[in-house]
Amino acid sequence: MRLDVSADDPFGLHNLPYGVYRAAGADPRVATRFGEHVVDLALLLGDDTFAPGSLNAFMAQGPARWASVRAQVVDALTGDVDPSAVHALDEVTLELPFEVADYVDFYASEHHATNLGRLFRPDGDALTPNWKHLPIGYHGRSASIVVSGTDVVRPCGQRLPPGEAVPVFGPSVRLDLECELGFVVGIGSPLGEPIPVDRAGEHLFGVVLFNDWSARDIQAWEYVPLGPFLGKSFASTVSPWVVPMAALEGARVPVPAQDPEPLPYLAMEQPWGLDITLEVVINGEVVSRPPYAATYWSPAQMLAHLTVNGAPTRTGDLFASGTVSGPEPGQQGSLIELTRGGAEPIALGGEKRGFLEDGDEVVLRGEARLADGRRIGFGEAAGRVLPARSLPAHGEEH
Amino acid sequence: MRLDVSADDPFGLHNLPYGVYRAAGADPRVATRFGEHVVDLALLLGDDTFAPGSLNAFMAQGPARWASVRAQVVDALTGDVDPSAVHALDEVTLELPFEVADYVDFYASEHHATNLGRLFRPDGDALTPNWKHLPIGYHGRSASIVVSGTDVVRPCGQRLPPGEAVPVFGPSVRLDLECELGFVVGIGSPLGEPIPVDRAGEHLFGVVLFNDWSARDIQAWEYVPLGPFLGKSFASTVSPWVVPMAALEGARVPVPAQDPEPLPYLAMEQPWGLDITLEVVINGEVVSRPPYAATYWSPAQMLAHLTVNGAPTRTGDLFASGTVSGPEPGQQGSLIELTRGGAEPIALGGEKRGFLEDGDEVVLRGEARLADGRRIGFGEAAGRVLPARSLPAHGEEH
Repeated sequence: MRLDVSADDPFGLHNLPYGVYRAAGADPRVATRFGEHVVDLALLLGDDTFAPGSLNAFMAQGPARWASVRAQVVDALTGDVDPSAVHALDEVTLELPFEVADYVDFYASEHHATNLGRLFRPDGDALTPNWKHLPIGYHGRSASIVVSGTDVVRPCGQRLPPGEAVPVFGPSVRLDLECELGFVVGIGSPLGEPIPVDRAGEHLFGVVLFNDWSARDIQAWEYVPLGPFLGKSFASTVSPWVVPMAALEGARVPVPAQDPEPLPYLAMEQPWGLDITLEVVINGEVVSRPPYAATYWSPAQMLAHLTVNGAPTRTGDLFASGTVSGPEPGQQGSLIELTRGGAEPIALGGEKRGFLEDGDEVVLRGEARLADGRRIGFGEAAGRVLPARSLPAHGEEH
Repeated sequence: MRLDVSADDPFGLHNLPYGVYRAAGADPRVATRFGEHVVDLALLLGDDTFAPGSLNAFMAQGPARWASVRAQVVDALTGDVDPSAVHALDEVTLELPFEVADYVDFYASEHHATNLGRLFRPDGDALTPNWKHLPIGYHGRSASIVVSGTDVVRPCGQRLPPGEAVPVFGPSVRLDLECELGFVVGIGSPLGEPIPVDRAGEHLFGVVLFNDWSARDIQAWEYVPLGPFLGKSFASTVSPWVVPMAALEGARVPVPAQDPEPLPYLAMEQPWGLDITLEVVINGEVVSRPPYAATYWSPAQMLAHLTVNGAPTRTGDLFASGTVSGPEPGQQGSLIELTRGGAEPIALGGEKRGFLEDGDEVVLRGEARLADGRRIGFGEAAGRVLPARSLPAHGEEH
């Protein structure tokens, strides 16, 4: 059969993201998305690399192979396609596209870090002294990473009510989203061998949307001195399609001016920013449009920093940008910013929202703009908030 | 053949830790240690669970199976043993015993947290307000976990020299060790299902020694506000033998008094402390003997806290205690404590040591004391410090 997809479709031949789908009753299999079609790659290419239900085997093969497969897919999709390889997008289930090895979250947006610093540390400088010298990051929980469509149960935990000295236990009352990009490592690097900033492209396989759900009250109580833990580890949602770095070549732009000049190991010779506009949608209503291009630290700098101490990387490592926020109103990638810590709720479908309520559905969307005007779709990272579950233990607040 | 091991050997029938060994030219295989013998479990028991070169498959089978295998091993080792299953300890290589899923480091010793709080935050309270309400923890890098005997290259990174406003890049000049216990999760728990504190024993498989190598200068510059990252992620060393929780039943003791009383989800009905004495040895000289029993938060509390927000756990999860320090001089589990931030170097073989120097060999040892007087050996977690490697980039300080 012939697959007819418009040349300017955000999932046209210039995109071809990788994912994992499951047809009714079948095992998960690797696919690409072409328009509204999900095309099975093992069947399309007759290549067993794509038979397992994750991208890891393919990602581990490295950039020469990625380029060759991409060319093969373009070739195959423009010819006659075996109908048994083709499914309609709305007839399959999309799975987590890869097995996550280590997961790191950065804090790379200056606008976000400034906004959050003002809220979390009102008596200090908004940016900590280290912020412009290194991309701040921390490790997160790989097991909690779920694919778009997975419900998110409101987490329970400790929080310190305002003005109190003793914490209470119960469901978070300041549940937030964080609109981010996630970068997926294809081939890793051994212990003791840092990845130079301008060789990051040899390791980076692709990009996903990433919602780093955050319980602000749990986070505020726990995070000094060792950083976020339970306030983040209950769930993080990724989009099911990994957009290859190769598809984003035409979306590369310079990052914002970096002043002071970064140390040599962070100095880039190539433009490593990406012209991607994100959208935060709650219950069908767009509440924010964060511009990724405004992000201070680039993915290449994050990867170079992450490994400069000799830390190894592996196929399936995921590092996220941290919340993407732009400088203008309506460009903030979290509710805590959009509502100034909950103090100024936003209008949402005739209601007000400070933080997320049970039943809210959060959808992140993204689209890259290539220099030639075409667009690259990222699909979506969606999740609905379910009410907290009570614990078997007794005595908690509810 | 008959294996003759004394009943009071620290690796006698009451211990039987699990590990992975490699004989010359062969693939890694699962074994137990019995005295100075390494006994291949697939051959000893004729059980294919032990054929893969990691403990994960066995750990995932759960506590009933762990108990049954333990009884089978005791039975087999007290009878006639197939000589092909037996190797001398000094003739094999010991490997990382399990594939690490998520890794979390806690901060569970009150003495350590107090000592470090005084050094890192001299103008504030030593313990943060949250410390006695929850076991503080943070995620670390699983890929950097190495087995005893692996050399540790001095990491490079950013640090802020005293009195300066701008960081420099170069090898860490404050390289430290942290003497910890690591707890290994056997069977995990699904997303959204917290592990109650008194059911932790159904999930915990065993215990290892753990050296959380720390570059104090890198850590001090980077850790505000999101916690330790590159100051820790260059290497963490585990001992090769996982001592089963079952072997430590007789070493269970109450934890120190917890005041204020923990919230109900952290309230234990069983004694979850462990009477284990650790040793920090540098270049053959014992510099500290941290008593694990002095640790404030128990492993059951750490696991209950880690999952109370619904975070899932997996076979191979590793969570460490944080540095173990006792209340007395000579019981601190890190050099930064033993030397008061480097200001009071300790004597070491006719030299002085503030922090670790290139060539230093650090060995952690541990021994549990059972109520009946027998001892349980943990083996050791050893690593030698190698000089920093220079980076391909130019312009750094050396």
